[in-house]
Amino acid sequence: MFYTLDILGTIAFAISGVLVAFHKRMDVFGILIIAFVTAVGGGTLRDLLIGNTPVSWMLDMNYTYAILASAVFAIIFRKKINYLRTSLFLFDTIGIGLYTVVGIEKGLNANLHPIICIALGTMTASFGGVIRDILCNEIPVIFRKEIYATACILGGLTYFVLIEFPIKTDFVFIISGLVVIISRLLAVKFKITLPNIYTKET
Amino acid sequence: MFYTLDILGTIAFAISGVLVAFHKRMDVFGILIIAFVTAVGGGTLRDLLIGNTPVSWMLDMNYTYAILASAVFAIIFRKKINYLRTSLFLFDTIGIGLYTVVGIEKGLNANLHPIICIALGTMTASFGGVIRDILCNEIPVIFRKEIYATACILGGLTYFVLIEFPIKTDFVFIISGLVVIISRLLAVKFKITLPNIYTKET
Amino acid sequence: MFYTLDILGTIAFAISGVLVAFHKRMDVFGILIIAFVTAVGGGTLRDLLIGNTPVSWMLDMNYTYAILASAVFAIIFRKKINYLRTSLFLFDTIGIGLYTVVGIEKGLNANLHPIICIALGTMTASFGGVIRDILCNEIPVIFRKEIYATACILGGLTYFVLIEFPIKTDFVFIISGLVVIISRLLAVKFKITLPNIYTKET
Repeated sequence: MFYTLDILGTIAFAISGVLVAFHKRMDVFGILIIAFVTAVGGGTLRDLLIGNTPVSWMLDMNYTYAILASAVFAIIFRKKINYLRTSLFLFDTIGIGLYTVVGIEKGLNANLHPIICIALGTMTASFGGVIRDILCNEIPVIFRKEIYATACILGGLTYFVLIEFPIKTDFVFIISGLVVIISRLLAVKFKITLPNIYTKET
Repeated sequence: MFYTLDILGTIAFAISGVLVAFHKRMDVFGILIIAFVTAVGGGTLRDLLIGNTPVSWMLDMNYTYAILASAVFAIIFRKKINYLRTSLFLFDTIGIGLYTVVGIEKGLNANLHPIICIALGTMTASFGGVIRDILCNEIPVIFRKEIYATACILGGLTYFVLIEFPIKTDFVFIISGLVVIISRLLAVKFKITLPNIYTKET
Repeated sequence: MFYTLDILGTIAFAISGVLVAFHKRMDVFGILIIAFVTAVGGGTLRDLLIGNTPVSWMLDMNYTYAILASAVFAIIFRKKINYLRTSLFLFDTIGIGLYTVVGIEKGLNANLHPIICIALGTMTASFGGVIRDILCNEIPVIFRKEIYATACILGGLTYFVLIEFPIKTDFVFIISGLVVIISRLLAVKFKITLPNIYTKET
């Protein structure tokens, strides 16, 4: 099931990358690079830190095919997908939900501490978008004044709470991923941000 | 002894990260990320290049706890630590002294050439600060017009000179770390910079 | 033969790094860092992704010596090499030709898929220049409106086409490297760029 989630997350992030690259009017090659980097950036950082090399997308061509297919699809239907620009946010949010869960699972497989697993899930989910934004000269999503990494951390905490109860592991993962997606959607809808610790005097 | 140095350097760098993040008025989550990245960035690059994975802070939670404790402490006492802003320079300098020595020791353990060990020490000491400054949109310390990496290299050279003499290894490491700290303090105090190789005609 | 190509590419990229650093009037230490990062950046990324650690330049000091010698040579003869500034483009182009071939060969040794090998060759060739340009605050070469990574990809495709024919492997590599160099030279001379996919209405 993780494999399906991973490929779905790859497609979601690849399309989010293509949409940002379109917005910046990049050439075909630039679009492909941004799609690729957005889709595999987080997983690559995670695999490097764990020592899981060659990194997963190098060993399994399905990632590359999924990214190329998503990018080519988006380039061919660019006039129609242009109307989808508002859906960038949705693809991005689905992507972080799926990737958070995939990252936690890889951390568990490497026998790492729950806190480290949550950090790996958050990195997997957010690092691709950070590189995408740096390359496209936007402020990285993770530093924007909205809940992003916090949603991943909430999902991670949900996992380690629910896993203590007699619930099937697959469900725990699905619920955790949904917590990420829903908490980001709600946070953006209701403009929830982290508390401000600075007073005027500070 | 290295373990103690490593944890002390982690605390020094975490606090230096928190102070820079305060200065940029980041939110709580941003402060934690900057503290973490500043503290573990250099060691992570070193561990990746050597192939020492999973990287050390993933296997030993004491790093994470030290960083979180330093950051929480600094956030709670932020009004008082605000007066300490001038001490950022000091924490940063202590951090590079400790981390240079830790980096050299890891290089020696991997049987690498002295020049590579000095490079690893310098990277361990400076890379966390470079990422901190890039994320906070400051000019990276290493490129500012003051002695920084040069101090680490001096400390590294000191190690490989002193180790030829019959001095206890622990002392050699302590002296090398002090050389880094003192040469940076002196360089900043007396405004010593690298020689300018450009003439007006160039 | 690869070893010779690798060292030659290292020298070409180190000199290209020194020339850019000169242009930015960096100090001696900055010049050395830029020379080093330009020369080893691409190979380091490739080695990390494959899991080939410690990365190659840490185990074989000839890379370090070649870079230091190139940089010191360029610094000593800086008034004369200044006239060579127009040759930066040439050194850079020779470098990407050599490194593309080296990267493909490393991918083949790790039994990776041809597409991944071409990606590794392109990364080896372009990533050092990307870091050089980011550190020197220039727009990364790979995103400039000229053929760069595309030349590497053409060279990679040439390799995997020619290798099907009964040609000596060494020749296949030499031809592939030349395809990279010549296609970049021609593209810049005749101002060939990638097709524009945006219409005015888009």
